[in-house]
Amino acid sequence: MTYRAPTREHLFVLRDVLNIEAYANLPSFADASMDTVEAILTEGAKFVEEVLAPLNAVGDKEGCVWSADNTVKTPTGFKAAYDQMVEGGWVALGSDPAFGGQGLPAVVNVAMSEMISSANMAFGMYPGLTHGAYEAIRAGGSDAQKALYLPKMVSGEWSGTMNLTEPQCGTDLGLIRTKAAPAGDGSYRISGQKIWISAGEHDLSKNIVHLVLARVEGAPQGVKGISLFIVPKFLPDANGEPGERNSLVCGGLEEKMGIHGNATCVMVYDEAKGWLVGEENQGLRTMFVMMNEARLGVGVQGLAQGEAAYQAALAFAKDRLQGRSLTGPKNPEGPADPILVHPDVRRMLMDAKAVLEAGRCFMLWTALHGDLQHSPDEAQAQKARDYMGLLTPVVKAYLTDRGFKICSDAMQVHGGSGFTEHFPASQYLRDCRITLIYEGANGVQALDLVGRKLAANGGRAVMSYFAEVDQLVGEHEGDAGLQPFVDGLKHAKAQLQEATYWLMQNGLQNPDNAGAASTDYLHLFGLTALTHMWLLMAKAAQARIAAGDHDPFLSAKLVTGRYFLERILPDAGGHLAKLKTGAETLMALPAEAF
Amino acid sequence: MTYRAPTREHLFVLRDVLNIEAYANLPSFADASMDTVEAILTEGAKFVEEVLAPLNAVGDKEGCVWSADNTVKTPTGFKAAYDQMVEGGWVALGSDPAFGGQGLPAVVNVAMSEMISSANMAFGMYPGLTHGAYEAIRAGGSDAQKALYLPKMVSGEWSGTMNLTEPQCGTDLGLIRTKAAPAGDGSYRISGQKIWISAGEHDLSKNIVHLVLARVEGAPQGVKGISLFIVPKFLPDANGEPGERNSLVCGGLEEKMGIHGNATCVMVYDEAKGWLVGEENQGLRTMFVMMNEARLGVGVQGLAQGEAAYQAALAFAKDRLQGRSLTGPKNPEGPADPILVHPDVRRMLMDAKAVLEAGRCFMLWTALHGDLQHSPDEAQAQKARDYMGLLTPVVKAYLTDRGFKICSDAMQVHGGSGFTEHFPASQYLRDCRITLIYEGANGVQALDLVGRKLAANGGRAVMSYFAEVDQLVGEHEGDAGLQPFVDGLKHAKAQLQEATYWLMQNGLQNPDNAGAASTDYLHLFGLTALTHMWLLMAKAAQARIAAGDHDPFLSAKLVTGRYFLERILPDAGGHLAKLKTGAETLMALPAEAF
Repeated sequence: MTYRAPTREHLFVLRDVLNIEAYANLPSFADASMDTVEAILTEGAKFVEEVLAPLNAVGDKEGCVWSADNTVKTPTGFKAAYDQMVEGGWVALGSDPAFGGQGLPAVVNVAMSEMISSANMAFGMYPGLTHGAYEAIRAGGSDAQKALYLPKMVSGEWSGTMNLTEPQCGTDLGLIRTKAAPAGDGSYRISGQKIWISAGEHDLSKNIVHLVLARVEGAPQGVKGISLFIVPKFLPDANGEPGERNSLVCGGLEEKMGIHGNATCVMVYDEAKGWLVGEENQGLRTMFVMMNEARLGVGVQGLAQGEAAYQAALAFAKDRLQGRSLTGPKNPEGPADPILVHPDVRRMLMDAKAVLEAGRCFMLWTALHGDLQHSPDEAQAQKARDYMGLLTPVVKAYLTDRGFKICSDAMQVHGGSGFTEHFPASQYLRDCRITLIYEGANGVQALDLVGRKLAANGGRAVMSYFAEVDQLVGEHEGDAGLQPFVDGLKHAKAQLQEATYWLMQNGLQNPDNAGAASTDYLHLFGLTALTHMWLLMAKAAQARIAAGDHDPFLSAKLVTGRYFLERILPDAGGHLAKLKTGAETLMALPAEAF
Repeated sequence: MTYRAPTREHLFVLRDVLNIEAYANLPSFADASMDTVEAILTEGAKFVEEVLAPLNAVGDKEGCVWSADNTVKTPTGFKAAYDQMVEGGWVALGSDPAFGGQGLPAVVNVAMSEMISSANMAFGMYPGLTHGAYEAIRAGGSDAQKALYLPKMVSGEWSGTMNLTEPQCGTDLGLIRTKAAPAGDGSYRISGQKIWISAGEHDLSKNIVHLVLARVEGAPQGVKGISLFIVPKFLPDANGEPGERNSLVCGGLEEKMGIHGNATCVMVYDEAKGWLVGEENQGLRTMFVMMNEARLGVGVQGLAQGEAAYQAALAFAKDRLQGRSLTGPKNPEGPADPILVHPDVRRMLMDAKAVLEAGRCFMLWTALHGDLQHSPDEAQAQKARDYMGLLTPVVKAYLTDRGFKICSDAMQVHGGSGFTEHFPASQYLRDCRITLIYEGANGVQALDLVGRKLAANGGRAVMSYFAEVDQLVGEHEGDAGLQPFVDGLKHAKAQLQEATYWLMQNGLQNPDNAGAASTDYLHLFGLTALTHMWLLMAKAAQARIAAGDHDPFLSAKLVTGRYFLERILPDAGGHLAKLKTGAETLMALPAEAF
């Protein structure tokens, strides 16, 4: 079984649902005609299918190898594939042309990210981290820093990392202890230990640009005293080429459940030379530029693992002969029927398909709003910024929770084979599991949503989202073909609105009510967003059918959408009921009663 | 973090909820006074905590090692622990005294099984498989076979396996190809390949008694032509001691996601000597004795992994300092609060606690009905047999699905630490995952429930269950303290009954409707059963409180039960809504539309 990029799905969403050609007034869309996009995604699909996917199992089996000289060897084939990726310009797709990038819109780039991640998530993290570090330097760095670092990071010649976590601090960055001492020459000396640093050391790129959170001597306690530093592995020489080795090493690799092909490093900084990004004590602000980008990227990874796992399960279900259909043999000449005939196997596959297609649409729709943040129309730009704030935690947590569920169901479709390492189901499940955790665990995303994003600007973002949904519903009410989708969305939105009002009333009164409601609220939001996407997709499919297009892809879309309404959306009521019970019982037990 | 056996929970259920001393009229309960049971479980807890639990991570890391001479070495320490287990009589706890067992009721034995499995699931499978093989020989073997094999299997001197699966057949046993040829001397020659044979080869016991499904030459096609054979690794000599080596070998081990400490073998039989158990072509019937026993055991494993994972997550949540409570610092002297103060962390732990406590009660309540099958009161015995048929698939699938969810949440509580192999969360999740698959994948359990168990004897079992629930509800209606539990159970049962009627009407009309509804129906059944258990537990706790017992354990029970009603039970509505949508949309897409 080989991964096949879902290019037809990408093009359907980009062309028929989002109609991205309508945004040609924005600079990044100028060269993004659908013909160009189709050509890029088709080439991209070839690259990931032929170069990255075959290395996925290799990476899992071999893992990365740390040596006592503090070097890290990536799995066989990773270096050659990375070189091909750099040569093909695939690292630069979404980056600013000012630094050598191709400047494609995020909405196109994210489709490519999905493919890379499905084909080889552990590999894709190397350029993925670089892009996050690029975004942070671009957002917070000086012109000199940008000129020195960004072109080499955009091309992929140099890679990047983000160094936040320390043994005593993960979520709570206020506890950071790594120190930065001014050296008097404009640079700082960085000392401390960072853990779980993805791509912290490897043999793929000529230099590694570490972005490190540290505390300047005398800085305020907590998160207000954290600064961000560029700490390169090799100090750039006068020509901007890798020069003297900096005083930092990878002290070892983490043994972990999955993503073995990515080096998860303990990084030790011992008076390493670093340069401040932006101002002292403002490090978290810049790091969060990177974090938000990274959070969307993790949502994409969750979806991408779900897609790859679904494809593997589907191939197995069509191939494996076992038992007979309940309604009579479907493969009478064979010894048994393919297990796809069994309703409960179908249920798992249809669950996956219905969530993946809407999840992908949601991911692309959100990415489009990322692009629209730069619209010259200020109202459009503000709404887009509002949406990005509101929806980033939903994309991150909802798509990863669902992606993991899909990976687990995909293993289940395989039966016993799925538990063996001869089939890819185990790797997808193990790799996917980290997406629920890193870049802010899903519970932290849920708290960000209810505690910060909902209330920002007096609830402007969520109100604007409700208004958009209401308008869409209003436009299609009475359209017989779309009726179930319109009804489903009305119902979902009503429940989400009820939950939102409940939170506004009860979260202020007792903040634990907000915390207690957060995950169910986020899932209710995710369900509503995916129902919203199904109405948009059903509308697009119906329009093409009405125009005489008989592609069975379109009728399958309508069936899959109805399946979502019948079999996924009913979870909404449970989430609403649960969150409205508040924090009282949840918090009632003293610690010693556990 | 070390696993601690939940002895207090076991004793509460056995004494206060099930009052097992009331069954002293049954032979197996004669020696099962609560004092004796408490002594056994307390000693058992010591054994698993001190001997088995410390080997759990060792087994995961080392795995089993196959050598070219077809031997298998178990992980360091397993052999010594197995010897201690045999010496301590822990293998024999639930077995028939006629064969050297201690004859304890299943309801006690299952508590011990839970502890063994929590402490070291991969290890526990060796004696677990032996017990399944013992049950099959006891049910179907001749007196001579019983005399020859059972005493040695009961003591643990010899171990056992079940050999069903072949590469082309897992669920569909009709496809079995392994051949059995009569040798003319009463024995048969067995030839074929079996895969995924747990404990198929190892260094723990002096002999391994394989129970093998095979097809006698000329037997009917499909499941009607399958016979069961005893095929020992060493042929018993005239004294019943291991003699000549039989012609069967372990050809290799499966690489798998978890349970590395258990040897999952490819078994190759090459004219191996075997003896028929029971009659030719009746093999499946006897094998299903073993399967039903094994299925309950797998449900216990799912629960047990959930319990162990929950304990690890709880210890982490009390220890890890990160962030501050939303309602103000709870550990003001420390750098941060323990993460147990965060409502969403609590949500995951309370979810686990509420499901584990009721799941354990359900497991013990079901095991008690296993004992009651042998009641001299025929009405009681028939009801118990009905329940065992009906509830075995629910115990197996529901407890494993929930157990896996708990393992995943336990990893989530750990944050990034959970994804590393330095903490036990990964192993619990990986080990637990197989429980959803083996002994009949959970989808097969669901189909067994709706396709076979519901309809058996005109629905007698489920009607009898409904009547029992109605009676319990009737007895406690108006009891103010129990009102939420009574209301919850009434509501759950009404939904389960509605689903049952829907299935009766629509499953006959189109069997795919039954298949399409099966998993949601099973989950609705599981939710109802656990709500039922919560009413029983709340009643027992309330009675002790009313009698002046101020143990905070009792008030915590009531809080945890209310949490279940508020936060777990609301899923029932979603299951009902989904299953009533039937098979139409689910089955609508042709295979090529996927």
